[in-house]
Amino acid sequence: MDALCAFQLTEALKGAIELDVFTHIAAGAVTASAIAERANASERGVRILCDYLTIRGFLGKEDGRYSCSPTAAVFLDKRLPSYIGSIANFLANDRLIKSYRNLAGAARKGGTVATSTVSPNDPVWVEFARSMAPFLGMVAGVMAPIVATPGRAQKVLDVAAGHGLFGLSVAKANPSATVYGTDWVDVLKVAVENATALGVADRYHTIPGSAFDVEFGTGYDLVLVPNFLHHFDPATCETFLSTVGRALAPGGRVVTVEFVPDEGRVTPPHAAMFSLVMLCTTPAGDAYTFAELESMFRRAGFPRNRLRVAGPAGPQVLISQR
Amino acid sequence: MDALCAFQLTEALKGAIELDVFTHIAAGAVTASAIAERANASERGVRILCDYLTIRGFLGKEDGRYSCSPTAAVFLDKRLPSYIGSIANFLANDRLIKSYRNLAGAARKGGTVATSTVSPNDPVWVEFARSMAPFLGMVAGVMAPIVATPGRAQKVLDVAAGHGLFGLSVAKANPSATVYGTDWVDVLKVAVENATALGVADRYHTIPGSAFDVEFGTGYDLVLVPNFLHHFDPATCETFLSTVGRALAPGGRVVTVEFVPDEGRVTPPHAAMFSLVMLCTTPAGDAYTFAELESMFRRAGFPRNRLRVAGPAGPQVLISQR
Repeated sequence: MDALCAFQLTEALKGAIELDVFTHIAAGAVTASAIAERANASERGVRILCDYLTIRGFLGKEDGRYSCSPTAAVFLDKRLPSYIGSIANFLANDRLIKSYRNLAGAARKGGTVATSTVSPNDPVWVEFARSMAPFLGMVAGVMAPIVATPGRAQKVLDVAAGHGLFGLSVAKANPSATVYGTDWVDVLKVAVENATALGVADRYHTIPGSAFDVEFGTGYDLVLVPNFLHHFDPATCETFLSTVGRALAPGGRVVTVEFVPDEGRVTPPHAAMFSLVMLCTTPAGDAYTFAELESMFRRAGFPRNRLRVAGPAGPQVLISQR
Repeated sequence: MDALCAFQLTEALKGAIELDVFTHIAAGAVTASAIAERANASERGVRILCDYLTIRGFLGKEDGRYSCSPTAAVFLDKRLPSYIGSIANFLANDRLIKSYRNLAGAARKGGTVATSTVSPNDPVWVEFARSMAPFLGMVAGVMAPIVATPGRAQKVLDVAAGHGLFGLSVAKANPSATVYGTDWVDVLKVAVENATALGVADRYHTIPGSAFDVEFGTGYDLVLVPNFLHHFDPATCETFLSTVGRALAPGGRVVTVEFVPDEGRVTPPHAAMFSLVMLCTTPAGDAYTFAELESMFRRAGFPRNRLRVAGPAGPQVLISQR
């Protein structure tokens, strides 16, 4: 019964983020009536929502006064730079949630029965670029020291750049790096905004269009392929990686950030669960094991592959060389 | 992030129930390909779904062979009388899920911003009567010995009877009981089916229509009000209970089955979380504390009220007398 009602947690947290409930509480409005006043909401609605969030561990409640949990206080108080509440706009996006509605249908077919997220110019990637930036900026920050070569010129290609932060994190870590980002034209506007905000716009260039069709150019020391391969079937990935190989400078590397489940496919949980997202939102994507990724890379001309895992829940980074 | 993705668990479990995944596994189809064949689904889709359910604890997986968790083996194997998988059709009902989509809107308004479930002849209650019967039959079975008076004639009114099982459990426990069920006309068809199946149709009568408008008749020894009051505001409940009072025989009792949170409204978790369901699906319903229920009953002419709790997670049964 809890599992069948789990969707309520998604919607309650999303609703509370939309109403800035955590921010209001952190700012001192701790009763249902005070929160309701600041959120322009009904006291009854706020009371019920905050009680639910208390039961689910996002708030505390004592004598009718609410408090933020330690996690909520850090990540859901809009006044702090650590705020990541915008991720609700993508993770619990109405259209994406609809993709899971007929999950039995997706299992029958073996792929999405909704609008695929790999269609050209899908606007969901603009939402992704805006909403997920605070979270993926942290991931990119973990990756950057693994792949940047400060002091040495580095020509970098960031495939399906989105928010741009993977490439931009390298540009920040290496003042001698120049970054080329590819993505749909509207998505790249977000990447350019971020490049400007980070003060590296002069070293950031865009290549708008499909990652499968655009001309990457050549001579790249580093090609970043963050959270991209999982959207496609292995044959498509191999063809794509062969193209990437031709864009590399001698000695260049491809760095993939991925969800990489163990061989049994049920650990680690978050990487392994990601397969379901691909089943429901793409025709043939998957979370690939290291053996599967290595096989794709080998066939595409990259015999040397190693997996770097940044912490137990950190990003899984695959470094591939010719 | 887990909370924002919690909806995936609801949809995955619902999809697996729809495909009879647990039944196929329990019946010996334990690989993705064998399950896929029986479920008429793709192996890839079944593999991804079953891996996800393994991570979430509903299945085990060893060397590519799946097994049901102890809970799934008892409750989700369709071949067993203990199967309750149909509850997914109500708890994760598409229309009801939509009621939570704009939860911030419901919190602002203090009530549902979707189609209310308390509208006349709402077809969702037919779905409820069919789907929730296996689960609520167990609840009714816990309640019956508390309220039935075997060997003594008992005229019973079952308000908003739904599946009918609360009244029917009394009819089963007391061969001298006669039960009158009220609900929308289409819902009562399900109750009559159940009365027939339980062999007590000759002692089961129906009063179709709104519980607020129909003529109950008089002389009832027992009026059951199971999971009804929470749909309405306290004033509406009081008026309704006054009407119920006039239908009672001298010494008669009103028995309410409810979600009754403690005064702090955040314990016990399942009773307290139920408020959110009422916020999202009704204009003014709530999970009422015992003090609130007692106040409604007192004003309606019932000064004697006591709460019986059948086990830590069992139904909360309020017994009220004039």
